[in-house]
Amino acid sequence: MPLYVHKYGGTSVGSIERIRHISAQIKVAKEAGDNIIVVVSAMVGETNRLVSLCNSFELNDDLAMREQDAVLASGEQAAAGLTTLALAEIGVRARSFTGLQAGIITDSTHGKARIVDIDTSPLRTALGAGDVPVVAGFQGATASGSIATLGRGGSDTTAVALAAAMAADECRIFTDVDGIYTTDPRICDKARLLPSITLEEMLEMASLGSKVLQTRAVEFAGKYRVPLRVLSSMHANSCGTLVHYKENIMEQPIVTGIAFNRDEAKITLIGVPDRPGIARCILRAVADVNINVDMIVQNIGSDGYTDFSFTVHRSDYETAMRVMQHTATDISAGSVVGNANIVKVSVVGIGMKSHTGVASTMFQALAEKDINIQMISTSEVKISTVIDEQYLETAVRVLHDAFELDKGVHEDK
Amino acid sequence: MPLYVHKYGGTSVGSIERIRHISAQIKVAKEAGDNIIVVVSAMVGETNRLVSLCNSFELNDDLAMREQDAVLASGEQAAAGLTTLALAEIGVRARSFTGLQAGIITDSTHGKARIVDIDTSPLRTALGAGDVPVVAGFQGATASGSIATLGRGGSDTTAVALAAAMAADECRIFTDVDGIYTTDPRICDKARLLPSITLEEMLEMASLGSKVLQTRAVEFAGKYRVPLRVLSSMHANSCGTLVHYKENIMEQPIVTGIAFNRDEAKITLIGVPDRPGIARCILRAVADVNINVDMIVQNIGSDGYTDFSFTVHRSDYETAMRVMQHTATDISAGSVVGNANIVKVSVVGIGMKSHTGVASTMFQALAEKDINIQMISTSEVKISTVIDEQYLETAVRVLHDAFELDKGVHEDK
Repeated sequence: MPLYVHKYGGTSVGSIERIRHISAQIKVAKEAGDNIIVVVSAMVGETNRLVSLCNSFELNDDLAMREQDAVLASGEQAAAGLTTLALAEIGVRARSFTGLQAGIITDSTHGKARIVDIDTSPLRTALGAGDVPVVAGFQGATASGSIATLGRGGSDTTAVALAAAMAADECRIFTDVDGIYTTDPRICDKARLLPSITLEEMLEMASLGSKVLQTRAVEFAGKYRVPLRVLSSMHANSCGTLVHYKENIMEQPIVTGIAFNRDEAKITLIGVPDRPGIARCILRAVADVNINVDMIVQNIGSDGYTDFSFTVHRSDYETAMRVMQHTATDISAGSVVGNANIVKVSVVGIGMKSHTGVASTMFQALAEKDINIQMISTSEVKISTVIDEQYLETAVRVLHDAFELDKGVHEDK
Repeated sequence: MPLYVHKYGGTSVGSIERIRHISAQIKVAKEAGDNIIVVVSAMVGETNRLVSLCNSFELNDDLAMREQDAVLASGEQAAAGLTTLALAEIGVRARSFTGLQAGIITDSTHGKARIVDIDTSPLRTALGAGDVPVVAGFQGATASGSIATLGRGGSDTTAVALAAAMAADECRIFTDVDGIYTTDPRICDKARLLPSITLEEMLEMASLGSKVLQTRAVEFAGKYRVPLRVLSSMHANSCGTLVHYKENIMEQPIVTGIAFNRDEAKITLIGVPDRPGIARCILRAVADVNINVDMIVQNIGSDGYTDFSFTVHRSDYETAMRVMQHTATDISAGSVVGNANIVKVSVVGIGMKSHTGVASTMFQALAEKDINIQMISTSEVKISTVIDEQYLETAVRVLHDAFELDKGVHEDK
């Protein structure tokens, strides 16, 4: 009997009507003979409401993070119970689980906890009894029994982790979009749905701001080779986009999509003494306050000094700036400048590995629209640029055209 | 070091401002050298919101009750986390606990679970570390780890049970009223605050609809002789009403208060064959659907038939009527009639034990206002009458006058 993990986001459980809708879908799958594990997010708006209550208190130490987690996790707990009720109403035997009850054990980094182990026996028992387990996403419990959340979008991680631990046949992420597009259709009306995408591309798309899937969930899927499908909870017959692990590059288009991220901010330390260990010193200071650094650029200095730039999530900007003021003093850097009005636009494609000229096509397309590139960062499967946020839409459209993404190279073969 | 359990209801944690207010009170108590365990209800309105979501699904089997509990318990969990954050903000080390985390073990009667055991080690550990434990009220976990709620007002029960298990010096129930009055001040402006009340009287007042304390919490307190104080969370210097366990009847007034209950409904089986086991048969049918029966009246039949009446909570009225239609057929009773427009008005006083004439004073006062008495039920410390709901206010006022409750007999001595 095949086993599927179905994950439904906040919009999909956003009202009693929507909960009934997805429950009917689950019933169809169950009656077709599949075993289903359901993972749900909190009802849309609920997490924001709870975060806003927590933010009334100006605290961010470890104890406060523990308490915020207890507050936030309640949203998914309620959604799991309600979904279970909806299933029961249509005759599907189901049973809700909090993260703790589902055996999801995390480290104690409250607010951004990592799953360290899953005791699958509670879910196996439920499946054995013919029940559909409905698991509250986004949460687990530390070894000492405190509730810990996995960070924003953590319900995807819950779903993928359960799919890996239970050796599920597929992890299906149901969302309010049809799947992964070449770029955001709201910005570029030529955007095209991708029937499949490689894990590496998906990872870049996710980390670059294509918000359909959380980066960490994609990483987790890749680590355990969990077949991952993104599809719409509204259109029952949509197959969405399958994230696969084949690497037949010959069949791949050069560029798969244009990703972007609005929520970036840039920080530059000017006049940094150019000696070994400086980069580590700067990055450790940021890591110590639990901020993820994204792009990093350092130019080789000619006069014993260098400029060091990096980007962070915009919500971490002020904290990172504060930390850097201290670090600048510590390492005798000249000054710190920041810019929270930048965005990152990237071209992504596994085909880049075997093709040259992608960068020059990209930079030429941007130059033709007079868009200044402030930072560049490349990997085997993507090229990212930082630009002023006012050029975001223009850049996405011109790049989508430049790489002819509306044409569906992959499907034509 | 004295140990106090502080319980705060939904209004007391109804907003961030209110949560800050009670946190400041807790800080004062803590700094005075007391050990404090805090129990909180969900923010006012939250439980109703969650109940309403659950009620979208027409289910009331055991599995559905389990899920409803998971949904409802999330409200107290969030309130406990927020209260802990508020304490941390003003420098009070605190730690939130769900019912499960606090070691509160219940039976599996979801929705109306009873506490069967408390593992005090988690709270003892927290107190030992100097932390203020903040426990989510209204909930525990079954032996198999399912979340179970204790029914409406269950946070009082949580507080009293923790006070008993931890051998606390006092259980303080903070509410939005100043304490226990001779009757509801909103109905009778001569109502007077009682500085103390016996457990038996409090039990009758609570069970008779004086909503300050849940009956079960009072019973629990009595069983373990937990000193219980009801006081206002708004007025810091109010001492409220102490529930005590002395029984020096000579010092007691004859009648302590007038209680009433709006939420009653009456069901009568007419023409019941008068044979042994009939009452048991009727009451078991009601108990089987988990409905509590309050007053029971049966007249001895002269012609082999009798009429059998009982009252239930108004919210159980329709279910009870449905069940009784079947039972009437089973036991060959003539018919079933019901009335959901009745209320119960009672005089309560431990002094009744040694005084006669209370009943006649009561019935005369009601008769003078032409109020028809539909049912009568008495105990050692109370006399209850069922009357038409339109006479509620009149009855309360006339009885308050008849027993001169504004005069404070107790305090005059």
